[in-house]
Amino acid sequence: MIRTRLTELLGIQYPVVSAPMGAVAGGRLASAVTAAGGLGLVGVSYGDPAFVEREMPLAAEGGGVWGAGCVMFTFDDRPGLWDRVLDFAPPVVALSFGDDSQVRRYVRQARDAGSHVAVQVHDLGQAVTAVDAGATMVIAQGAEAGGHHKERASLPLIPAVVDRVGDAVPVIAAGGVCDGRGLAACLALGADGVMLGTRFVATDESLASPGTVRVLLRAGAADTVVTRVFDIVRGIPWDHRYRARAVANDFTRRWTGREAELSARRAELESSWSRAVEEDDVTQRQMLAGEVVDLVSDVRPAGAVVRDIVGEAMAVLHRLSSGETATNLIHAGES
Amino acid sequence: MIRTRLTELLGIQYPVVSAPMGAVAGGRLASAVTAAGGLGLVGVSYGDPAFVEREMPLAAEGGGVWGAGCVMFTFDDRPGLWDRVLDFAPPVVALSFGDDSQVRRYVRQARDAGSHVAVQVHDLGQAVTAVDAGATMVIAQGAEAGGHHKERASLPLIPAVVDRVGDAVPVIAAGGVCDGRGLAACLALGADGVMLGTRFVATDESLASPGTVRVLLRAGAADTVVTRVFDIVRGIPWDHRYRARAVANDFTRRWTGREAELSARRAELESSWSRAVEEDDVTQRQMLAGEVVDLVSDVRPAGAVVRDIVGEAMAVLHRLSSGETATNLIHAGES
Repeated sequence: MIRTRLTELLGIQYPVVSAPMGAVAGGRLASAVTAAGGLGLVGVSYGDPAFVEREMPLAAEGGGVWGAGCVMFTFDDRPGLWDRVLDFAPPVVALSFGDDSQVRRYVRQARDAGSHVAVQVHDLGQAVTAVDAGATMVIAQGAEAGGHHKERASLPLIPAVVDRVGDAVPVIAAGGVCDGRGLAACLALGADGVMLGTRFVATDESLASPGTVRVLLRAGAADTVVTRVFDIVRGIPWDHRYRARAVANDFTRRWTGREAELSARRAELESSWSRAVEEDDVTQRQMLAGEVVDLVSDVRPAGAVVRDIVGEAMAVLHRLSSGETATNLIHAGES
Repeated sequence: MIRTRLTELLGIQYPVVSAPMGAVAGGRLASAVTAAGGLGLVGVSYGDPAFVEREMPLAAEGGGVWGAGCVMFTFDDRPGLWDRVLDFAPPVVALSFGDDSQVRRYVRQARDAGSHVAVQVHDLGQAVTAVDAGATMVIAQGAEAGGHHKERASLPLIPAVVDRVGDAVPVIAAGGVCDGRGLAACLALGADGVMLGTRFVATDESLASPGTVRVLLRAGAADTVVTRVFDIVRGIPWDHRYRARAVANDFTRRWTGREAELSARRAELESSWSRAVEEDDVTQRQMLAGEVVDLVSDVRPAGAVVRDIVGEAMAVLHRLSSGETATNLIHAGES
């Protein structure tokens, strides 16, 4: 086992969290991660009511310490759906992408409902706001992540967030981690755990489309782009400071640099794009992926992913401190 | 001591390298890092002949394992200066920013001169090219670095480079590291050492201007921008894929988005800009800094920086594996 302040706070075995990826992280994925000793999060994301009603019961039935991740700004005009999420009494609520007043409101409501609350932050100011608002954990996310992010990179962001708010709450590192080396590295940086997205896309329990998984297994970081074009065609009013990392395809190549035209022609284009998504057309659909996609080359059960990450991290930490001859470190002892 | 394949290859005590920062990393800084057990590099960079004649002897006189860092593409029209660099017989030559044929040519010439050769890479393809060309080390640099870089972030780039070429050569991680937590993290990722720039700007031996150091001590990562404007005003023909991270100031604010105009008006603007630099006008001058600038808040002797990094890294590794109660990790033992 690896005990950190995160595992202590939540009563879980391993400081490994599966990201609440919209439409990808359903109840089965969350349950599998939780059953393996980590923290599984359902990707409520923008809040599709059918997804909530279908997937949250699956996670809740699995029991243990699971959670739901919600994109704050998309819930403001649907208070009923937000209440419905809280009805399932998720032990953890993960909140992302809101302004200061949204952070304060959603944190308070989730805490009032009895949940632990993790707020995703992308810079030092947001970390302070989250803690002031009552978050019981912060998720420090770097721009190497798949999906939406701001500009900071994880390696320097994590220790800076730890220095700023680590005395108050556990810090979960997100963005750029997909194996035990990454977990060990983030623990060394002072984080209390890691959250992984891309690695869990390629699992048996993932709801990602077959085409998406096939593309991710072949793609490298150099195949990813940071883009707003999918937000535009979907009509989701994202703050422009946040852009999403996805695998480049014909759609990103066609519309990058022509965002204003795409926006103007959305009514005309949306239905054909949506149809392409339904047909799992990987030349058109959004396939979010982080830079770690370089390191993802197989589909495995989510529980095995958790166990492998933990096993590898422990082996790395043991090797680095033991003086064993190893790939990179020959000996670390007294100087 | 921390022994890795890097320390074994070079016969140094610690896997800590000071970056060859142009006009900042002179012979005294390199010597101090080398004397403290690391690898100190002189920032020959674009190759100012007066700098070479003044600073390289200082590093050479210091003895031990030191090196010189050169930006390849700037030497093509000055073969005499490149020969002059090799005349000083630097034990290590660090090469950055060249196309494949430049990498092959400069690596071969430096190896023929008897030096170890580290090539800085920014993606997996460049890592393979460097090793094929005969590099004896690669420096994997992420975009959180100060100075010029490409787009990849360190946390996911380092293990991917290690997987690709780590069997062949030691891998040095650069970008996003400034303390012992960062060293420990990069060792966990499989790197054999780290290279730090920004941290060594704020040292007693740094040649950075007083204004630059003063600004860096106060600046955070959010104050940095990634820009081409200084390359343009200086007339240095950088490949546009590489841009530089620097602290934002009036000059970056004035010209960002107006790069074509700056380029067209360079003849008119360069002398006043150069005069401002001579006067250490921080509203105008280039002040390169990485995202770790968040964590740099004091000026120390370079040797103390090396010793503190190593001491902190060893404490972190010990804590992570020992089961001691610690800030973040309570216990890592058998599961």
